[in-house]
Amino acid sequence: MPSYDPNNLFAKILRGELPAHKIYEDDKTFAFLDIMPRAPGHTLVVPKAPVRTLIDIEPEDLAHLFKTTQAVARAAMTVFSADGLTVHQFNETAGGQVVFHLHVHVIPRKTGVALKPPASVKEDPSVLSDQALKLAAVLKRA
Amino acid sequence: MPSYDPNNLFAKILRGELPAHKIYEDDKTFAFLDIMPRAPGHTLVVPKAPVRTLIDIEPEDLAHLFKTTQAVARAAMTVFSADGLTVHQFNETAGGQVVFHLHVHVIPRKTGVALKPPASVKEDPSVLSDQALKLAAVLKRA
Repeated sequence: MPSYDPNNLFAKILRGELPAHKIYEDDKTFAFLDIMPRAPGHTLVVPKAPVRTLIDIEPEDLAHLFKTTQAVARAAMTVFSADGLTVHQFNETAGGQVVFHLHVHVIPRKTGVALKPPASVKEDPSVLSDQALKLAAVLKRA
Repeated sequence: MPSYDPNNLFAKILRGELPAHKIYEDDKTFAFLDIMPRAPGHTLVVPKAPVRTLIDIEPEDLAHLFKTTQAVARAAMTVFSADGLTVHQFNETAGGQVVFHLHVHVIPRKTGVALKPPASVKEDPSVLSDQALKLAAVLKRA
């Protein structure tokens, strides 16, 4: 598999070179809203370690990534009064990956509401800012 | 959310009341082939703890679940000469969950080959047995 490219979009977000609607950050992980959500509250959880896919990540970082994913999942259920959650994690182009820094999609779901196609509709930034504040507040209390 | 139902299909597999094409087992996790794979090698990884969704699982069990998921992912890449991997994890009916014991789908992918629709084609048991043996052998060496 190809090696890690430090100029990918999420590496730039982690370095603060690109903005993001952050909802959570700790020493090992960072979570922010997808700007083209497949449903309201669609969040991306990434490790800070420079890893390309699930195959590459160190066990300790992997454990921490899913601890944060669980916390985000719980907050998303609360904030969006969700009926369920869909979690996707894509590896390499063949697996559906588009940005080559390991990430987990956490998507709150409502009964009877289908996911939007990937990268189909850009959300209004003010909507994302408001959602990010609400999610961050719940995660802070967790 | 509803509580855990100990008569779900995967609980029965864990208790040995139903057969499965097992590829890996340790004290906390169990992995076996999906009998209606969305691509060859489609594996389900489950915790042994009786938990319904990602929301419910204890941190230590969650860390172990994804450690096993990573090992399965690596083995699947090798055995199926995969170009990538798609990982799905569904919570509650609204999130796509059908069997209400927490599970992670690990699906080896080939460039240009779309996933089959969920639960659309039942695989030949002899094909599954052969694939399970190969995956188990690689996981044993890991």
